Amino acid sequence: MDSRNGSVSEALLDAEIESFFDSAPPLKDRAGIIKKLKEFIEYNSTPPGKGSPRRVVCVTSGGTTVPLEQRCVRYIDNFSSGHRGATSTEYFIKAGYAVIFLYRRGTFQPYCQSLPEDPLLECFECSDDSTIQVRQPHTEAVKRAVSDHHAAIAGGHLLKLSFTTIFEYLQILQSIAMSMKDLGSLAVFYLAAAVSDFYVPWKSMAEHKIQSASGPLDMRLVQVPKMLSALKKEWAPMAFCISFKLETDSKILLEKAEMALKKYRMHMVVANELSTRKEEVTVVTGNEKILVCRDKTQADSDVEEPLIELIVGRHSAYVKDSDL
Amino acid sequence: MDSRNGSVSEALLDAEIESFFDSAPPLKDRAGIIKKLKEFIEYNSTPPGKGSPRRVVCVTSGGTTVPLEQRCVRYIDNFSSGHRGATSTEYFIKAGYAVIFLYRRGTFQPYCQSLPEDPLLECFECSDDSTIQVRQPHTEAVKRAVSDHHAAIAGGHLLKLSFTTIFEYLQILQSIAMSMKDLGSLAVFYLAAAVSDFYVPWKSMAEHKIQSASGPLDMRLVQVPKMLSALKKEWAPMAFCISFKLETDSKILLEKAEMALKKYRMHMVVANELSTRKEEVTVVTGNEKILVCRDKTQADSDVEEPLIELIVGRHSAYVKDSDL
Repeated sequence: MDSRNGSVSEALLDAEIESFFDSAPPLKDRAGIIKKLKEFIEYNSTPPGKGSPRRVVCVTSGGTTVPLEQRCVRYIDNFSSGHRGATSTEYFIKAGYAVIFLYRRGTFQPYCQSLPEDPLLECFECSDDSTIQVRQPHTEAVKRAVSDHHAAIAGGHLLKLSFTTIFEYLQILQSIAMSMKDLGSLAVFYLAAAVSDFYVPWKSMAEHKIQSASGPLDMRLVQVPKMLSALKKEWAPMAFCISFKLETDSKILLEKAEMALKKYRMHMVVANELSTRKEEVTVVTGNEKILVCRDKTQADSDVEEPLIELIVGRHSAYVKDSDL
Repeated sequence: MDSRNGSVSEALLDAEIESFFDSAPPLKDRAGIIKKLKEFIEYNSTPPGKGSPRRVVCVTSGGTTVPLEQRCVRYIDNFSSGHRGATSTEYFIKAGYAVIFLYRRGTFQPYCQSLPEDPLLECFECSDDSTIQVRQPHTEAVKRAVSDHHAAIAGGHLLKLSFTTIFEYLQILQSIAMSMKDLGSLAVFYLAAAVSDFYVPWKSMAEHKIQSASGPLDMRLVQVPKMLSALKKEWAPMAFCISFKLETDSKILLEKAEMALKKYRMHMVVANELSTRKEEVTVVTGNEKILVCRDKTQADSDVEEPLIELIVGRHSAYVKDSDL
């Protein structure tokens, strides 16, 4: 039986969070990141000319890693291609949002989903007069990737920040959230990244590569403190928050999504099952479970289109309610 | 004290190797891979026209992963950019070898090292008449990547095979080695991949995602059987073999490299220290320790150029000796 009451358990969580950040290796160029965030948010809140302010969404994407050694040779990784986050970013921009895309290095980028695995080597060829040209049938996909991506960046609607480890991810997420705090209910968090549940605290980590000579390897990993609580309580309390729950076992999925919704006071939890996640997801809110499916009559449709449409609608209602 | 004598310990190793392969998830398209290997080796052994046969080197590159769950969400990864393997491949091809490049998906590819992290989005732009063109200053790097890479593939001198998990890596390596057996001393293994030392046997692995609710995560990983022994003893006993030893602690590096040389009967072990590995390596042979450094008078020189030169020389001597 858990005898801790609410405030004791909150104090414990605060201590865990403090200890996580204190023991994390310092984030490189934190000042530079904060400057970029400030400029991006300012530009989109008070756009030059007659434009109206854009809502801002932070989309997280890809999986975090947990180093097992300080001079990192081995680490635990959470699988995520970043497809969900990259595709959702496109629909948010289309819907008029400015997107802070916090992504794992090497994962999918917005506007690049229909390209092959190694686009440079597969989509281009060197012609006889030694100019580089796009190979058929990739012309349209390459054009879209290059021009739409550049247009989003050049238009000031897309800011990309990358991470690899859980330490980088949570430190940058905190900086983003604190920069977005003043946006109040206009801010959205769409937390699609696959975040490690367990980590090895930096200070208890082996400095050098773990040696394999001496039998099996026993490891103890501790839980990553639940940062969603801090996000909702302190970093950006007015933001509209959507988190994701991925399970391989459909039997426990919805129950876990509901638990997350209540525990972290999310506005929505998107429940994915690993094997069907590209076809359908269930959106869990305080009083609904909404099944969202891709349009199966269209070969190239995706589940992100109706999902973002639903979210934008709910976010608009939330903004309106907050204004009352 | 280890009371096992040689043959008992060899029998134990054989049993471990058998159990590893028996319990591994089956390799996808094994027949297709073996067919490609056969054609590639035949083409290079008896090239059409008047060409002389090429020596064949298998270059392994990038790190392997160890899944922690059968429906893989989490895995342990070994860090390796694949830079060493990709660059070495270029020098082997230049020296007249045919290369089987066994690489981790997403790591560096031959001829692509001087490109930025995300070449498609950083090296190209859409001109006013909406054709895709290369951005300055990337023109030469892109041309080199596309034309040299295609030339190597089209010329039949480069075969690329990819892996992600330790199970895929070792199964493909075994197929490659057995396909190369008949090449005798003309075959080379250049084993630059960062291979996991520990794994979770497939059958003892959790089927579903490990849950985080119940406190810290304790894991026991067992050692991956030493496949180099099997490679030397059974798969391709006449091949010239170079393995790599990477450590973060320079104090134990050379000692561990010498141990590996003897234990696995390698012809050479390349000893790298993580922080200086792009500047210098030490090549350990039966009676020498040769320090190999990049030419520091040239800004764009690399350590792979003198390293492959040394290896090609030693391999030539080995081929001559074997012919006697």
